[in-house]
Amino acid sequence: MGNLKRRKFLQYLGTGAAGCMVGGCQEESATQTAQPLTSNETFEWKMVTTWPKNFPGLGTGAEFLAKTIQEMSNGRIKIKVYGAGEIVPAFEIFDAVTAGTAEMGHGSAYYWKGKNAAFQFFSTVPFGMTVNEMNAWLYHGGGMELWQEAYAPFGLVPMAAGNTGVQMGGWFNKEINSLSDLDGLKMRIPGLGGEVLRLAGGTPVNVPGGDLFVSLQNGVIDATEWVGPYNDLAFGLHKAARYYYSPGWHEPGTTLECFVNQEAFETLPADLQQIVLVAARVANQDMMLEYVARNNDALEALVDEHKVDVRRFPNDVIEKLRELSEQVVAQVVGDDPFARKIYDSYQRFLSKSKAWYNLSERAYLNLRDRDNPL
Amino acid sequence: MGNLKRRKFLQYLGTGAAGCMVGGCQEESATQTAQPLTSNETFEWKMVTTWPKNFPGLGTGAEFLAKTIQEMSNGRIKIKVYGAGEIVPAFEIFDAVTAGTAEMGHGSAYYWKGKNAAFQFFSTVPFGMTVNEMNAWLYHGGGMELWQEAYAPFGLVPMAAGNTGVQMGGWFNKEINSLSDLDGLKMRIPGLGGEVLRLAGGTPVNVPGGDLFVSLQNGVIDATEWVGPYNDLAFGLHKAARYYYSPGWHEPGTTLECFVNQEAFETLPADLQQIVLVAARVANQDMMLEYVARNNDALEALVDEHKVDVRRFPNDVIEKLRELSEQVVAQVVGDDPFARKIYDSYQRFLSKSKAWYNLSERAYLNLRDRDNPL
Repeated sequence: MGNLKRRKFLQYLGTGAAGCMVGGCQEESATQTAQPLTSNETFEWKMVTTWPKNFPGLGTGAEFLAKTIQEMSNGRIKIKVYGAGEIVPAFEIFDAVTAGTAEMGHGSAYYWKGKNAAFQFFSTVPFGMTVNEMNAWLYHGGGMELWQEAYAPFGLVPMAAGNTGVQMGGWFNKEINSLSDLDGLKMRIPGLGGEVLRLAGGTPVNVPGGDLFVSLQNGVIDATEWVGPYNDLAFGLHKAARYYYSPGWHEPGTTLECFVNQEAFETLPADLQQIVLVAARVANQDMMLEYVARNNDALEALVDEHKVDVRRFPNDVIEKLRELSEQVVAQVVGDDPFARKIYDSYQRFLSKSKAWYNLSERAYLNLRDRDNPL
Repeated sequence: MGNLKRRKFLQYLGTGAAGCMVGGCQEESATQTAQPLTSNETFEWKMVTTWPKNFPGLGTGAEFLAKTIQEMSNGRIKIKVYGAGEIVPAFEIFDAVTAGTAEMGHGSAYYWKGKNAAFQFFSTVPFGMTVNEMNAWLYHGGGMELWQEAYAPFGLVPMAAGNTGVQMGGWFNKEINSLSDLDGLKMRIPGLGGEVLRLAGGTPVNVPGGDLFVSLQNGVIDATEWVGPYNDLAFGLHKAARYYYSPGWHEPGTTLECFVNQEAFETLPADLQQIVLVAARVANQDMMLEYVARNNDALEALVDEHKVDVRRFPNDVIEKLRELSEQVVAQVVGDDPFARKIYDSYQRFLSKSKAWYNLSERAYLNLRDRDNPL
């Protein structure tokens, strides 16, 4: 990517865009119209994913992204989407796109914590940001530039491409009444939440979504969290566990990602680069909206038809998990200046948005349901 | 628009898209690639808005939309954005785009309640949906199809193109301790919230944003709400009023819109239609994210530098406003079957999402800030 192209691309993605929008957009537009006519060159790409093909929300979100790019580009970019294991195993897609085996991948940053523990901040942080806060940080708070910096050494261009909203706390076959109930528990729980479980004496296991039900039923794991009612019902997790705990303190708004091989991205003309970037933003929003729209029907099915026992984590368990979460984050940051830079940016943004949420979103939700105090 | 084209367009916008995503996407993609090569035909459009040119959030959101369309289309669509009054007065843009004076408009549906009172449901409803719920209803709950049906008689294609999130409750020069403090008050408050004020004995006045400060200072109005800290600070409303009330019970997630003259939309090739639709979705998200990112800094400036007195509406005032809001909605629905159809759809969706939010978003926000109960 030439310097000029890269500058423009970075500007679009991050806080630079806001600066442009207020002041310099017209100038930029004038330059734009002087470009050559639209090229009819075509591109055939592969997208590898960590999800079962067409899995509700996650897999269909990847398909939505591919379809949106294809339609806006009038078929100049065609993308074939592969489910986990079809050509690349679920947890090898990051390396596969770095290597150019596929041009594009769809997953979540915490799966690659083995590359760099700080990647986890781009998925979700226990007791951290909700979906709108996270996206505001990424697009208007400097988060996206940090993510680009984090993936650049791997030859990947990251984009936020989906979000689950607040997840559920997980499926258990015993009640969680105190922190000691997590001691010795083998649980599928990725990212920073998994490290919190480890400090509580449990064993976090990472299992691809498609293997969860069997692992839970066979006792390979004792408990699992996955996403929320819409997805958990689809996997039939209620058939392998009795208690369904809320809320997902460990994943309050998990960002799904797509990443593009940088060389492949650079071969696209500027309009197709924009189409890919914008399509990812719409996919990012659309997946979350689908969860908002579908989770409650699924919750009703779980409770009314399948008699699932929905519980809330006791407050003192929550407070202990909060303390452990702070320890985990401190470990990840350690003495790594780049991890420190990411987390400081994240935390600064969160403390501001929290103050505003207490006057707006949170105040409103409590007011709307005053007859049902929480 | 031919039947085939229209079907495809409606599918994209609304719940049809979800159905396609799960099952029939690959088939559709195959058809797509058989289309003719991308055309280099160009279009020069005007966008008229109800906002001052480049006003933070609202005006810059309209610019962002124009810029995104231009970049993705490689300049095949160029859009010149006009502030309120530049070529069309703020509250005449709806008619102007119907008439074809401009191809595109940017405003909010409640400004056109004189055309059809039910339009207000596409902006916001007192004690109704938050931004994510509203967008989930529009894109995954049938709301967008109803909005299309509502604007079709006016030759307009509506799109959601921005959202303020939960607004503030307004600026007052006296304390609001009981409902009677609203009696006799002349207040700028649009849409259904304005009708609630009327039932409380006040007089709702609609004043374009750009005239608010002067109207408040000159006593043309006694009080006003506008948006939230980021926008209210920009207008200097704190210089004309003493108390700043929270939260915005009357506008819990107001949708801004763009609408396109239907004939103009139909003349676009399919890829450019998609580009316009997708750009609106990204603009819809981006504006809200900008508010999340900027409101708290502005709030700090208002409180720390300008010594604004931030208050919360007392609970019994809220409960009375809730009762009046239900009466207002009942009046709007009246015996109009189309208004009934829209509101039933809205309300059905809200009651489901509310149940899920009480287990997810709301439960989480309260848990995150347990030391600061609200």
